Amino acid sequence: MAKVLIVFLFLFSGFSAKPAGQDSLKFVDAASLPLVGKGFDDTENRYERLPARLKGVTRDPVWVLSTNSSGLAIRFRTSSRVIGAKWEVTRDVVMNHFTPTGIKGLDLYCLVDGEWKFVNSARPTGKFTEAVIIAHMTPEEREFMLYLPLYDGLSHLEIGIEPGSEIGVPLVELPRREKPVVFYGTSITQGGCATRAGMAYPNILSRMLGRETINLGFSGNGKLDLEVAEAMAEIDASCFVIDCLPNVTVQLMKDNYARFLDIIRGKNPEVPILLVENIRYTHMAFDQNTAAFVNDKNNLLKDIWQERKTQGDRNIFYMKGDNLIGDDLEATVDGVHLTDLGFLRMAEKMYPEIKRLIE
Amino acid sequence: MAKVLIVFLFLFSGFSAKPAGQDSLKFVDAASLPLVGKGFDDTENRYERLPARLKGVTRDPVWVLSTNSSGLAIRFRTSSRVIGAKWEVTRDVVMNHFTPTGIKGLDLYCLVDGEWKFVNSARPTGKFTEAVIIAHMTPEEREFMLYLPLYDGLSHLEIGIEPGSEIGVPLVELPRREKPVVFYGTSITQGGCATRAGMAYPNILSRMLGRETINLGFSGNGKLDLEVAEAMAEIDASCFVIDCLPNVTVQLMKDNYARFLDIIRGKNPEVPILLVENIRYTHMAFDQNTAAFVNDKNNLLKDIWQERKTQGDRNIFYMKGDNLIGDDLEATVDGVHLTDLGFLRMAEKMYPEIKRLIE
Repeated sequence: MAKVLIVFLFLFSGFSAKPAGQDSLKFVDAASLPLVGKGFDDTENRYERLPARLKGVTRDPVWVLSTNSSGLAIRFRTSSRVIGAKWEVTRDVVMNHFTPTGIKGLDLYCLVDGEWKFVNSARPTGKFTEAVIIAHMTPEEREFMLYLPLYDGLSHLEIGIEPGSEIGVPLVELPRREKPVVFYGTSITQGGCATRAGMAYPNILSRMLGRETINLGFSGNGKLDLEVAEAMAEIDASCFVIDCLPNVTVQLMKDNYARFLDIIRGKNPEVPILLVENIRYTHMAFDQNTAAFVNDKNNLLKDIWQERKTQGDRNIFYMKGDNLIGDDLEATVDGVHLTDLGFLRMAEKMYPEIKRLIE
Repeated sequence: MAKVLIVFLFLFSGFSAKPAGQDSLKFVDAASLPLVGKGFDDTENRYERLPARLKGVTRDPVWVLSTNSSGLAIRFRTSSRVIGAKWEVTRDVVMNHFTPTGIKGLDLYCLVDGEWKFVNSARPTGKFTEAVIIAHMTPEEREFMLYLPLYDGLSHLEIGIEPGSEIGVPLVELPRREKPVVFYGTSITQGGCATRAGMAYPNILSRMLGRETINLGFSGNGKLDLEVAEAMAEIDASCFVIDCLPNVTVQLMKDNYARFLDIIRGKNPEVPILLVENIRYTHMAFDQNTAAFVNDKNNLLKDIWQERKTQGDRNIFYMKGDNLIGDDLEATVDGVHLTDLGFLRMAEKMYPEIKRLIE
């Protein structure tokens, strides 16, 4: 522990880490503020992603991952010059290719001239953290969005402001709440391995599109579970994006992909569905087995897409994986999971296609 | 610990994490293979960055940080279809805005058609790790570069190959060893917070330029220490890049910046010196105090540069900080430290200028 502290001291000398005002912030429970990015009202706890009725019904790993708060964000408005937070995570997850800031930190954005701009992240110190996120702002009223942890559960959150200031609900509906874009997928969809929550690709797309996005990414578990499709189908979405190929086998695709689509289509006959190929993992340039495995799945996905179109579905669309993260092989931390560089590239590639589908 | 393992299982089901062959690799001590990125031969241990004679002479934090292996890489050649590594770090550093992979992991690149391409990272499990980095390659001879930890010391490193294959010294001198580019600076220079070592900006520039780069970044401690300048001045460099502004005050610049330059100039009368402004921290858009602090230092740096030119130094150059990391405010994890996105942008901006200076 001592060595960690020493390193922090090294890293932070030279600029102010604890601005004036930290000790005297007024904290407000975020439960009183609107939450965006949530697909279901009937969750067991506020900061979760699947309806309570799926507990004990869906597989355990899916359920546990659904208690991670990926894709959720608190919206608020304040003219406080300082913003801080107190929060408690449920599991204090640690991973060796992922920043704690991304796993279980918070990430603050501000609306500037109609665009969401990164303000700063709140860096976790363990299960419970209290931190100043930004200080020394001018005292004008601003709209904020605070992204919640990508890979941990959030049991409690308070937002800190200066004692003389107020915190209120937003005056601007951005992202737009009606008809969200729903993403179903894997660890990559859930946000692994963004350095901070705002850089997960569904969150970037929410800012780009000005539209709420719902993150149903389940790390290692985007396995076409049919009860998840049943739940998804209830969301009044503008588009369903199915980006689960990294977690399935060819056999599982043959068994479940068409049934998964049928369930969504059953309740949403005309809503665009976008099928996304497996991204071209950067290490596929070297690992022949992985390259073959991914190519087989992408080929089968193309067949599935063609078949649906042949059957008369005119609202089913396809996105190739080739160029989603660029072609310089630099966009992942481990061959598979995207860095902020990979996520920004992926969002920029998906943006025009999804924008076209939801307009 | 159990929960961490569970999360890893979630994350990795769906593709092969432990390829065939891991259990039977032959390991070779990297001490027999050439090390690039090292400014001084007379270090206390092989994977360190300052000469042993500075121990007890330079400030303690500078010395401790100089034992971090940032900027160093092992060069080798093999036709093994599998590459692995065993390594031990000295301190097992943990930080909350930095991936363990970047702090204390390894990062493998391969030369493909004359360009260095990311193969995969080796993800640390603690003080000692054994890991397969890549498997299932075709058995052709390839040139590799294995970047060492950015923010930890490396006490021992072995490279693993298939028992029937050989590992040898490179046949291609890339990066070129003669007349390296020397970078002096801060946590950002040292590589905070790249997700893996290859994405620290001096390492990216080494690949882009095809020239060895020497990383003398000391997290929080790029404070114009004159004994560090004395050591740097001994390197037969093609260019000195001084990128330490985040760690200094206006007063420290007034006291030491000119003396620091005089020492380098004394032994290198004609070598280009590039003065780099403080990057525009992303949170400067909101934090007025930080914005003023940075602007004051950048203004003083411009004065120092103008004065040197007025005094007749025709080989002193200046790089503005405004656009080094883009203007969308997305390039940092915490306002200050660059992600892979920020580092790639910074390297792309610096590349044409440094290329011009060293040719």
